[in-house]
Amino acid sequence: MYVIGERINGMFKNVRQAIEEGDKTVIQDLARSQVEAGAQSLDLNVGPAKADPVKAMLWLIDAVREVTDATLTVDSPKWDVQKEVIPQLGGEPIINSSKADPEELEQYVGLAVETNASLVALTLDRQGVPADVEKRVELGAQIGAMAMDGGLPMERLFIDPIILPVNVAQQQPEVVLKALQQLKLLSDPPPHLILGLSNVSQKCNHRTLINRIYLVMAMTAGLDAVIADPLDTELMNAVITTELLQEKAIYCDSFLDAQRMRR
Amino acid sequence: MYVIGERINGMFKNVRQAIEEGDKTVIQDLARSQVEAGAQSLDLNVGPAKADPVKAMLWLIDAVREVTDATLTVDSPKWDVQKEVIPQLGGEPIINSSKADPEELEQYVGLAVETNASLVALTLDRQGVPADVEKRVELGAQIGAMAMDGGLPMERLFIDPIILPVNVAQQQPEVVLKALQQLKLLSDPPPHLILGLSNVSQKCNHRTLINRIYLVMAMTAGLDAVIADPLDTELMNAVITTELLQEKAIYCDSFLDAQRMRR
Repeated sequence: MYVIGERINGMFKNVRQAIEEGDKTVIQDLARSQVEAGAQSLDLNVGPAKADPVKAMLWLIDAVREVTDATLTVDSPKWDVQKEVIPQLGGEPIINSSKADPEELEQYVGLAVETNASLVALTLDRQGVPADVEKRVELGAQIGAMAMDGGLPMERLFIDPIILPVNVAQQQPEVVLKALQQLKLLSDPPPHLILGLSNVSQKCNHRTLINRIYLVMAMTAGLDAVIADPLDTELMNAVITTELLQEKAIYCDSFLDAQRMRR
Repeated sequence: MYVIGERINGMFKNVRQAIEEGDKTVIQDLARSQVEAGAQSLDLNVGPAKADPVKAMLWLIDAVREVTDATLTVDSPKWDVQKEVIPQLGGEPIINSSKADPEELEQYVGLAVETNASLVALTLDRQGVPADVEKRVELGAQIGAMAMDGGLPMERLFIDPIILPVNVAQQQPEVVLKALQQLKLLSDPPPHLILGLSNVSQKCNHRTLINRIYLVMAMTAGLDAVIADPLDTELMNAVITTELLQEKAIYCDSFLDAQRMRR
């Protein structure tokens, strides 16, 4: 399971303040602790309404790069930010994210191919998030086809079928599970399948419980990557135990510690 | 999710002693607490090597009947026990269990039909537990066909594809998930699908974690009944949350308490 740590996000007050005040220590602590907890990549999001989002993103990147070599996931819906930042990054960054509209997607696929980046693409077009399985799979197929045409290998494509909060759209968790099962059959090798997990429990009670149960369900349906909080120990235990039961890690009595070490 | 409480079992030392000493209070406390924790049925198992297993089973039944009307699941591999006990029970008991051998299965189906009982049938024959998905599904189909021929409605048939301990047969959890998905397609309506959950973590570390993660995975694959420990609060929270995410219960902020009350 490829875990992208979600905690360096301007939606969180301490991160927003750190960006405003230029306080690297908060960012660097979050970078280190997420990697130690098992994140393979760190999502970086400057939050809404920054006057200069490129500058803020580059500052975040500098801060994080001083403490870890982990893969960076540049999280911004703005093409201007991605276009500016990704070529400066080096390594193999992740672009998060493109929608499925053909013109937009073509630009993003091109950028990913040129820069050795991976790309997260959402099954979302100008009509918004599809309500059903079929439209998600149709958009996923469109994304897969355009990535192939553009020369982006499936190993560098992450399709996100978008999970909505269970308290406002209670049929959606099952819809997304079915979409995951079908998207897994798109190609051989299949694209990675990813979710922004915490959205499923937005404004719910028992958030961490809902997050971790849904993650196990989604992994059972074929999810192999997630943007989530690696500092939630029970969530990471659920990931490790699901992988054990999927025979993706060898059983030993200390499997929790062993897999945490391996990450 | 139909939960059958596993705790009244002579494999547990306190239950074995209670049976030997004729001490009803231990049995009755376990009966009450499991029903309060959300069990719809109570599994009764006198344990191995009783000189007179029929007498021991009838004593257990008497003890439990004094404190609850919950459905009783008579857990014995001995035909002599089932044949003797089930007709005396009244209500709608569950016979646990028959193997898939045709002669044995025919007897058990007949007993279930005559006595208004439900039947748990294992995908297991004289060759033992199948190693693969195909043989489990083949035996499941055989069980389904014989139940139909014998006049046992699918709603009263529970097929158990048998989960083995992850530490000795690590490919088996995935094999059983695939078998569940296929068994769900056997008929319309499908039979119930059940597992004796705790077996997955036999002699493992982190048993309750493994149990509850595997239960969520199995529910995602179609499991709708389980023999498990309802006194494990986190296990029951996982059941309730999975059902919430499957839209089998309506979301409200107090969904854990609300569903616990409903049970």
